[in-house]
Amino acid sequence: MRSSFVALLTDFGTEDGYVGAMKGRLLDLAPHIHVVDISHEIEPYNIRQAAFCLNNSYKHFPEKTIFVVVVDPGVGTPRKGVIVETSQHIFIGPDNGVFSFVCRSEGYRAFEIKMDSLGEDIAPTFHGRDVFSRVAAWLANGRRMTNNVNPLSQLSTFLKPMQQISDREYRLEIFHVDHFGNLILNLHQDDCLKLEAIADPGIRYKKLELKGVRQTFGDVDEGAFLLTWDSSGFLQVALNKGRAAKKLDAVVGDAVTLFG
Amino acid sequence: MRSSFVALLTDFGTEDGYVGAMKGRLLDLAPHIHVVDISHEIEPYNIRQAAFCLNNSYKHFPEKTIFVVVVDPGVGTPRKGVIVETSQHIFIGPDNGVFSFVCRSEGYRAFEIKMDSLGEDIAPTFHGRDVFSRVAAWLANGRRMTNNVNPLSQLSTFLKPMQQISDREYRLEIFHVDHFGNLILNLHQDDCLKLEAIADPGIRYKKLELKGVRQTFGDVDEGAFLLTWDSSGFLQVALNKGRAAKKLDAVVGDAVTLFG
Amino acid sequence: MRSSFVALLTDFGTEDGYVGAMKGRLLDLAPHIHVVDISHEIEPYNIRQAAFCLNNSYKHFPEKTIFVVVVDPGVGTPRKGVIVETSQHIFIGPDNGVFSFVCRSEGYRAFEIKMDSLGEDIAPTFHGRDVFSRVAAWLANGRRMTNNVNPLSQLSTFLKPMQQISDREYRLEIFHVDHFGNLILNLHQDDCLKLEAIADPGIRYKKLELKGVRQTFGDVDEGAFLLTWDSSGFLQVALNKGRAAKKLDAVVGDAVTLFG
Repeated sequence: MRSSFVALLTDFGTEDGYVGAMKGRLLDLAPHIHVVDISHEIEPYNIRQAAFCLNNSYKHFPEKTIFVVVVDPGVGTPRKGVIVETSQHIFIGPDNGVFSFVCRSEGYRAFEIKMDSLGEDIAPTFHGRDVFSRVAAWLANGRRMTNNVNPLSQLSTFLKPMQQISDREYRLEIFHVDHFGNLILNLHQDDCLKLEAIADPGIRYKKLELKGVRQTFGDVDEGAFLLTWDSSGFLQVALNKGRAAKKLDAVVGDAVTLFG
Repeated sequence: MRSSFVALLTDFGTEDGYVGAMKGRLLDLAPHIHVVDISHEIEPYNIRQAAFCLNNSYKHFPEKTIFVVVVDPGVGTPRKGVIVETSQHIFIGPDNGVFSFVCRSEGYRAFEIKMDSLGEDIAPTFHGRDVFSRVAAWLANGRRMTNNVNPLSQLSTFLKPMQQISDREYRLEIFHVDHFGNLILNLHQDDCLKLEAIADPGIRYKKLELKGVRQTFGDVDEGAFLLTWDSSGFLQVALNKGRAAKKLDAVVGDAVTLFG
Repeated sequence: MRSSFVALLTDFGTEDGYVGAMKGRLLDLAPHIHVVDISHEIEPYNIRQAAFCLNNSYKHFPEKTIFVVVVDPGVGTPRKGVIVETSQHIFIGPDNGVFSFVCRSEGYRAFEIKMDSLGEDIAPTFHGRDVFSRVAAWLANGRRMTNNVNPLSQLSTFLKPMQQISDREYRLEIFHVDHFGNLILNLHQDDCLKLEAIADPGIRYKKLELKGVRQTFGDVDEGAFLLTWDSSGFLQVALNKGRAAKKLDAVVGDAVTLFG
């Protein structure tokens, strides 16, 4: 029941040494593990970006991988610290929505970490090191946490049902702008299949209208926009060999109309 | 014939989880390997920068290290995916020039990956995860790829012969501006030795003229320019305790005159 | 006496391949080690930031961890390269102050690396690869370095005694601005306890006056400033759910008054 891999996802950057402190703590308590960086460049406090990044990554990791996710604007307040177990993986972090996609996609059991049971000094501003990394190392060592957790029936999520705005139209939003300027929309291919009104997806955004989902960037001319499913199954607006976000002056949160 | 180390070089950034997906896939298929980050901060689509970065790194790695290089503006188009084997190392990535320096320096055998032989879902926008990481894991496991590749006689390269502009002058260009603002020129020490016209290298660039190659930054005063061989053997223009690129307003692609 | 972990801290960025070269060299000479990234995003030449980052990280790492710290504006000049041994850890890098906090907190033995004893080509601009990584790999392999070092009685430090400006006032400065915009001041909790004039610390900076040290961000309203001990024990000025540095237009080096 020991874990070999602990994957880290934070908004800490690396230059202050906070990530180094977490790695040191993990390796000190569980020297057999391999620490794997997912990212430390999440925008500070951006819970949605962290959830998106985690969703793109976690499914591909080996069974028993432990994910430590620390994007935690509420550190030091009474927000909960949680352990989430799915059939394949274990997730540790604050209960603030960072696990929204995990909970939507997977069956899970959740537990609240009893902070006052950890029995050591805990810096109130650095649970990443003193709570989440410590718990991850214990779990990686196969330690049972019975005395340190309480069952938790429900986890925080920021996902909401899509808003229908007419017979054949839904309101989407730009959920994420990725490193290449692609606009990721809050519609997963699986969910789209369930929308009877949407046979062949199209979108309208500002002066742009796109109809039909392409296989890949090369299906349109250089400099042309296209609609495609991203590599995790979300609808995205892309620009072949260019940055869609820049050309459209698009930002996260902008409304996009989906039509059928 | 198993490999212990898989080194990654991409232009993905880390914040979207694409690198995380690659690491997960690699460790899921080959849990014995150590994944080593070279960089994920290559400028998007900058093939030359990736080739330069790879060239600075790969020679120092242990035998059998596998390098997965994914700077891939042509993903989803018919550009080839390749495996390149030298006497020491294995390289995997798109055939778009990222291996230009490897091919110039080393004897090699190249193979084209038969995409339709991989027998699983391949996201057309993410060969980094579904093609190159998968192939890297298979090779790390010692699997023979006979049915998955075709021999390839020639690889893409962006390297061109130097242009002679007079008896004792050649046209160079600024090939790369590094993290410290040093200007790396497209002339390797080994190639310079073969130029009979150039006994003692000098360069002219804008109003700057430098003659003679120094050992190190400290050989000139603080704030003075110098010419030196960089740590991989390329000619570079540097500024002791300063940023040459900023002071000279220099950008990649600018022409520089080499004189003898 | 072998070491399993070698942790890296540089100002190289990753995009040039210099860090890749160091990792390759380390793994080539000591394939059993795990290379752990602390950071490569230290501001170029910023020795104080590197020292701060190291201080936040090193204490948490396992015994025998080797830290290779290369923020080295003087590379190629006669500045010394050093090995610093404490009861728990080993540190390798230039003797320019990057180990200031280590030396203040720990008993240590220091050694100067005899550059001309290393017996191989050393690029004068890249001791990170050719000196410090090589020495780290040797030490990780348990090699005795007797012939390669000389004892060194004292290490460079940038730490100075605090300046008292009145009966109950000291002059502090902003030592570091972290990823979240918190202002770290050059006063450690342990040192503050020794100041008889300061019973209950307060600070004045520009128009801001704060009295009393809080436990955590949530102890004040959103958008309010607070004084707290950071997770390594330094006094910091923070802004709950905001960036103190931005709101105060504060930069490293600014003077702050401590009063009792």
